[in-house]
Amino acid sequence: MATQYRIREREYGERLAQAQVLLRETDLDALLVNSNEADFASVRYFSDYWPIFETAGVLIPREGEATLLFGPESETFARDRSRIARIRKMMEYRESSDPAYPGIEVSTFPQVFREIGVPAPRKIGIAGYLVTTLPVADSLRTAFPDASLVRADHIMMALRQVKSEAEVACLREAFRIAEVAVDCVLKSIRPGMTELQVVGIVQRIIYEHGAESEGMPQYVLSGRKTNQAISRPTHKVMQKGELVQLNLSARVDGYSSGVGRPLCLGKMSGHMRELVEFGKLAHERTFGCLRAGVSASAVAADYRRFFIDSGRGGNYLYGPCHGLGMMECEPPWMEEGKDYPLAAGMTFQIDTFVQDADLGLRWENGSLITTDSAELFSNRHMEILELG
Amino acid sequence: MATQYRIREREYGERLAQAQVLLRETDLDALLVNSNEADFASVRYFSDYWPIFETAGVLIPREGEATLLFGPESETFARDRSRIARIRKMMEYRESSDPAYPGIEVSTFPQVFREIGVPAPRKIGIAGYLVTTLPVADSLRTAFPDASLVRADHIMMALRQVKSEAEVACLREAFRIAEVAVDCVLKSIRPGMTELQVVGIVQRIIYEHGAESEGMPQYVLSGRKTNQAISRPTHKVMQKGELVQLNLSARVDGYSSGVGRPLCLGKMSGHMRELVEFGKLAHERTFGCLRAGVSASAVAADYRRFFIDSGRGGNYLYGPCHGLGMMECEPPWMEEGKDYPLAAGMTFQIDTFVQDADLGLRWENGSLITTDSAELFSNRHMEILELG
Repeated sequence: MATQYRIREREYGERLAQAQVLLRETDLDALLVNSNEADFASVRYFSDYWPIFETAGVLIPREGEATLLFGPESETFARDRSRIARIRKMMEYRESSDPAYPGIEVSTFPQVFREIGVPAPRKIGIAGYLVTTLPVADSLRTAFPDASLVRADHIMMALRQVKSEAEVACLREAFRIAEVAVDCVLKSIRPGMTELQVVGIVQRIIYEHGAESEGMPQYVLSGRKTNQAISRPTHKVMQKGELVQLNLSARVDGYSSGVGRPLCLGKMSGHMRELVEFGKLAHERTFGCLRAGVSASAVAADYRRFFIDSGRGGNYLYGPCHGLGMMECEPPWMEEGKDYPLAAGMTFQIDTFVQDADLGLRWENGSLITTDSAELFSNRHMEILELG
Repeated sequence: MATQYRIREREYGERLAQAQVLLRETDLDALLVNSNEADFASVRYFSDYWPIFETAGVLIPREGEATLLFGPESETFARDRSRIARIRKMMEYRESSDPAYPGIEVSTFPQVFREIGVPAPRKIGIAGYLVTTLPVADSLRTAFPDASLVRADHIMMALRQVKSEAEVACLREAFRIAEVAVDCVLKSIRPGMTELQVVGIVQRIIYEHGAESEGMPQYVLSGRKTNQAISRPTHKVMQKGELVQLNLSARVDGYSSGVGRPLCLGKMSGHMRELVEFGKLAHERTFGCLRAGVSASAVAADYRRFFIDSGRGGNYLYGPCHGLGMMECEPPWMEEGKDYPLAAGMTFQIDTFVQDADLGLRWENGSLITTDSAELFSNRHMEILELG
């Protein structure tokens, strides 16, 4: 089953070639793309390599072969997995437990830049800028004191924001699995269970149905904790009548889903139901705005105005959409001030979070922009969910 | 069940006070501790806060209150979870999808340093140095152009390497759960299953038995992939007669386990069995060396010499032990050149990895150093495991 949903060898090569086209259009001498275990997307996008414990990088010249960079312990893993033939171990990408690895030979930045044919870079583009580490940056600055490090995440976004057919297929499958997990939770969740017990159920289901991992830590947050936009499940026991913020995810060949639903372990109180229904309206309104050519900023402004006009300005935290792909949350966001037009093939999470003093909820679905409208990757379980 | 294993409020306070004692012994004006989602330990150690999507920091003055730093989206999560009362949002700790968060007010480094009473630092200690990001470092350097950033991970190691009673209790429980997961895998693993299906089984079990998450990504690697010291499970179908590298983990209130066993889906071939038995000997030999007062370097030298004297120098990659705690792999490593003496209360993973051209294996158990010897946190399933 799982092998149907694969990014093919050729597509990895095309991505590198496309990055080089963009590199040649800039005044950058090379692009260094960095990732870590939690934020692995930029490196995996080019190499299929997915660091664990250690961090990783991909070094791309304007022309010629790229190099995959990783820490001293991952050589056999990288050789097995990398779609980039030249692989190099570097101490800059070692794991945080800081082993010295006596006896393992490693490369240096001057060596790996020489190997890609850029022995004396003047401008080095850095992508995955926000997760690039201080040791990597300082090592580059020491090796090339006259070079400048220039943020180049726009190259990654240009490559990644419009998805290929294979990427869309992986996303569809990741959402299918997440919806199966929602089915299963709806059947098994009960007052008296802990949030983490529900996570265990979700984890079992996603692997049974072909996920390679969760796409993000599963959200099962109950009661007062539902008002946390970002949070982690705990051993908290869920009570009858409490709202639960469910946001379930799966990863398929690198691509992540997230399906968010508010559900009540009983009948919703009046206030709770009003908020849940308001969130659903805001969610559906956002979906109605999505189509190629529309400005991201306009969708965002309309969303915030809908909160204000509904007397719910205080319930607004952020929104209404963020990019979706290898990370469940990746650039670009739809925010006021971001004036890019939506384009066919872009994928977004419609992430409708409504925050109140002691209650919160999230309706969230994946979507694909088309010429005339948008398609949903997930749309089941959109009724008001009251259990038991 | 789970609430028995908790780090208490008071212990978090003691950790901060102890860090301040060490800070006053240095010429550092303040300590900034950084973490990310994958490498969260340094921040969680002081605050119990555990970042997700975003990154986080703890800023500690020599005297007075510390501050927890995190990104714009996590305020209600941080307020609920942090044992540090003063919490501040900063763009430097935002998530990698790079939202602009229009309308959310954030703090700056000059503000948060002023609030801890250090308006003009000259020397800023940085812990979690290897995961500190370029944007955090550059922002500090811009805010305080005359200050130097000094690596201060030795403070974290001094605090964390000897465990408290509560920390040991969490570790014991994390290993108990991992061993239950090994039980379950031994009962259910079969040729024809994929590595990831086994991961699903493990995930179900650890949450059922009280884990708050996996302690590291679960290792289920089969066949040729067993020779990867660091790797990830895939959809590879496991074959009869193949070796499987199992390394299972659970996390209990922040503390991680890892139980590593080689098992064969059938009878071991002669060469396979020789390597597995050699690894077991090396593992037991290392355990026999562990006690307070012994030099880490001496244990490491003895281990490597054992490989060489056994004609297996080519099977050596690293070893023999690394620190164990909130990260399954944390400082200090036992390596040649690291001359610190073992002390009672230190905890280590005895991580015996044996690498061959197309085969590898890992025997791994957690251990607690005592005055006269060491205790094992895990010791079941140490027979030669041949299934079916």
